[in-house]
Amino acid sequence: MLRKLPLLLAAALTASTVQAQDAPTRIPESAIATAAQLRERALKDDTAWDFVEGLTTEVGQRLAGSENDAKAREWVIARFKALGFDKVWTEPVTYPKWVRRSEHARMTAPYAQPLAVTALGNSPGTPAGGITAEIVAFESLDALKAARPELVRDKIVYVGPRMHAHKDGGDYGKVGSPVRTKGPSIAAQKGAAAFLLRSAGTDDNRLPHTGTTDFEKGVTPIPAAALSSPDADLVEHVLKRGKPATIELALDCGVEGEYTGANVIAELRGRTRPNEYFIMGGHLDSWDPGTGAIDDGAGIAISVGAAHVIAQLPERPKRSLRVVAFANEEAGLYGGKAYAAAHAKEIAHAVLGSESDGGADRIWKLTASVKPSARDAIAQIAAAVQPLGVEYDANAPGRAGSDLSAVHEVGMAGLSLHQDTTRYFDWHHSANDTLDKIDPEQLRQNVAVYAVAAYLAAEAEGDFGSAPGAFAQDKE
Amino acid sequence: MLRKLPLLLAAALTASTVQAQDAPTRIPESAIATAAQLRERALKDDTAWDFVEGLTTEVGQRLAGSENDAKAREWVIARFKALGFDKVWTEPVTYPKWVRRSEHARMTAPYAQPLAVTALGNSPGTPAGGITAEIVAFESLDALKAARPELVRDKIVYVGPRMHAHKDGGDYGKVGSPVRTKGPSIAAQKGAAAFLLRSAGTDDNRLPHTGTTDFEKGVTPIPAAALSSPDADLVEHVLKRGKPATIELALDCGVEGEYTGANVIAELRGRTRPNEYFIMGGHLDSWDPGTGAIDDGAGIAISVGAAHVIAQLPERPKRSLRVVAFANEEAGLYGGKAYAAAHAKEIAHAVLGSESDGGADRIWKLTASVKPSARDAIAQIAAAVQPLGVEYDANAPGRAGSDLSAVHEVGMAGLSLHQDTTRYFDWHHSANDTLDKIDPEQLRQNVAVYAVAAYLAAEAEGDFGSAPGAFAQDKE
Repeated sequence: MLRKLPLLLAAALTASTVQAQDAPTRIPESAIATAAQLRERALKDDTAWDFVEGLTTEVGQRLAGSENDAKAREWVIARFKALGFDKVWTEPVTYPKWVRRSEHARMTAPYAQPLAVTALGNSPGTPAGGITAEIVAFESLDALKAARPELVRDKIVYVGPRMHAHKDGGDYGKVGSPVRTKGPSIAAQKGAAAFLLRSAGTDDNRLPHTGTTDFEKGVTPIPAAALSSPDADLVEHVLKRGKPATIELALDCGVEGEYTGANVIAELRGRTRPNEYFIMGGHLDSWDPGTGAIDDGAGIAISVGAAHVIAQLPERPKRSLRVVAFANEEAGLYGGKAYAAAHAKEIAHAVLGSESDGGADRIWKLTASVKPSARDAIAQIAAAVQPLGVEYDANAPGRAGSDLSAVHEVGMAGLSLHQDTTRYFDWHHSANDTLDKIDPEQLRQNVAVYAVAAYLAAEAEGDFGSAPGAFAQDKE
Repeated sequence: MLRKLPLLLAAALTASTVQAQDAPTRIPESAIATAAQLRERALKDDTAWDFVEGLTTEVGQRLAGSENDAKAREWVIARFKALGFDKVWTEPVTYPKWVRRSEHARMTAPYAQPLAVTALGNSPGTPAGGITAEIVAFESLDALKAARPELVRDKIVYVGPRMHAHKDGGDYGKVGSPVRTKGPSIAAQKGAAAFLLRSAGTDDNRLPHTGTTDFEKGVTPIPAAALSSPDADLVEHVLKRGKPATIELALDCGVEGEYTGANVIAELRGRTRPNEYFIMGGHLDSWDPGTGAIDDGAGIAISVGAAHVIAQLPERPKRSLRVVAFANEEAGLYGGKAYAAAHAKEIAHAVLGSESDGGADRIWKLTASVKPSARDAIAQIAAAVQPLGVEYDANAPGRAGSDLSAVHEVGMAGLSLHQDTTRYFDWHHSANDTLDKIDPEQLRQNVAVYAVAAYLAAEAEGDFGSAPGAFAQDKE
């Protein structure tokens, strides 16, 4: 018996695999026809615009754990209910609460100049009155890693590489984000007094870009902040003169205990398989200098807009649709991880998911991480969004985007709807993240793509491979 | 006798006019050939860049009357001397001193939102703790003018028209500048508590644009400030909801006595007619949010660069060249008016002048206000700069630019070298007026145009019509 059991299990697994290959997931032609109508309807619908206009106007910034974070949850719950979702609920998300009170920097020698600066999330404050120290500059994170600690000790480390704009946002992942997230920890390990970077952005505005940083375990955190790009230029012009340069940095900020917020979830109930669902959304928290329009009011708005046009159809799709406004994505996907933990056991019910978190400019590419026998269905979805200008890259993974990447990691099949981020990093995490940066026409294109994808996934005959641990090895 | 005198005078005037028409001002061919060499040399010369890089890096903002204003004068005097000008001197300029200490605004109802704001020059401060009042909005200055005082009394007036970008800066003169300079005075006359405008700029950055405002005689000044364009949008989105909106505005600023600064003047001495000169320059003062790179470090830099390449020639031009770093242009052409007053009697010595105060993007058009018999010489200058992409509009006046327009008004012949201002008003008077906004290649084109024009004017046989009162009626 003991020997037979594994054989039986193996046979069962093989059968399951064969069955999946033999019965490819398909989307019925009638659903494809309905999707074409949805596409046109979405291109004329302003539900998404109204949502993000309302959230940014009536609430504004939504720093995780702040008073406005709670205000935003109430606002979203009320709006979800007003939009007629069948069910609206919250699920708790707990995380360390980081607060920002004030931030100032200036060069004190060899020239007196004010510097536009913003503290990074997770940064501790400086002692009252600030830190005044000499700057030591590095061109890259690698140069900092290679530096002898005696060069860095008690100094303000500055790391200055520039990000360049790309449709696929490439420089953020390669340059901006690594310097911001890892630089302060490396500088702290070498005994630096504080850390400054050239903002992880592609603009030349005198508005610094914030964002979170991570300190490795065992490292004593040091104050860490971003200079606007013109201020970083100024520092570099001064340093080129070969004279020592001194900066005064005063940050009043830091982690203060824990906070319990929530993911806000809205559901349109499916007509025949209500327990299964397509999941989409964005994150409700934002950084505090702007009003969180492109990051990520737009993401929730797009999902809401898509659900709204689908809800106008004569009948609900077979499966349910879930829209999630995730809590505290910015400090480390807390909302996504909480959802993943809460729903890991029944992850097979989350048939496919896609989160929008790249602004509001048009979607230009679709990729997916699904089981092989669902590839044809993904190709059907891709064909249905192709008239909206979306390419299909069948060879790249689709990890479902920010918070949902955490859900994908526990086994949800992933769809990635890639937005053009050429302009996104001009504004991202800065005071310039405001409503005027959203182009209503491009926003509607996003809604149309999401509406089509959500509807077709909800109507598919067969699944996309969601199962506990199914995509554990998937890397973008 | 009494009757004959006017006749004699009339005859003399006629003779003078006829003589001027009979002997047109000409530029010798040898000078035209030298100008072609200058043009090429200027396109490779970085003296202008080094000047503006130095001024913005080593001094930074230069608010008229501030500590940095004095620092900048010392810096410029030292740089002029180091560049080998034959003579460097200052002439005093006295004006009311306006100071800015702090500025804050926020919406308090119906939604709590911070607002990015900057006080206008000449604005008084609010009482400590600020003013809190309801907003009343107007689409244009005309709408405000037409408003019944009871609609405005004790309220914060907001005027919100948008500027659009043009090569010739048109919307600034038509929209932005009138609202800023005249709006507060009109609102004050109707009993408003304070005045806000949508920044006089063409950008969508969350950086307000400052600039001076004027209060008419007898009007009690009220606090006046500019919102960044995204903040103006926010106010308008709130007001569209039809609910009363309340703003708290706290400005700590105001006029505090008088200050005596100076125009800083450098001269390259002419080889045969040293008392006559071509005059060029820019203004040394800047607004304080940025570092005064495009407004107007670039203007002085361009003139310095032009003088520098001319100084490298084997011999000096016939006439002298003057480069002026004018004091306090921003609050009302104080430097230009002081120069005009000090030199009015010998204004005929200022044969022609052109001030650069439109940034550092390329010069695309040349216009002039000169006596008719100097038109051919202007056409010769235009032909010499035509290879640099400069058009000649023979029918439009040329009032010589900002401060020099005040000198033109007392009789100096004027040359206007129009810069492309498509990008200028994105940054003008905001924190974004920083060195990175200057394109070194376009800066060199400006230097080349100024070098050619200055040299040819200094070599002309005959004058351009400068005489006391000669251009009193000239309007651009």
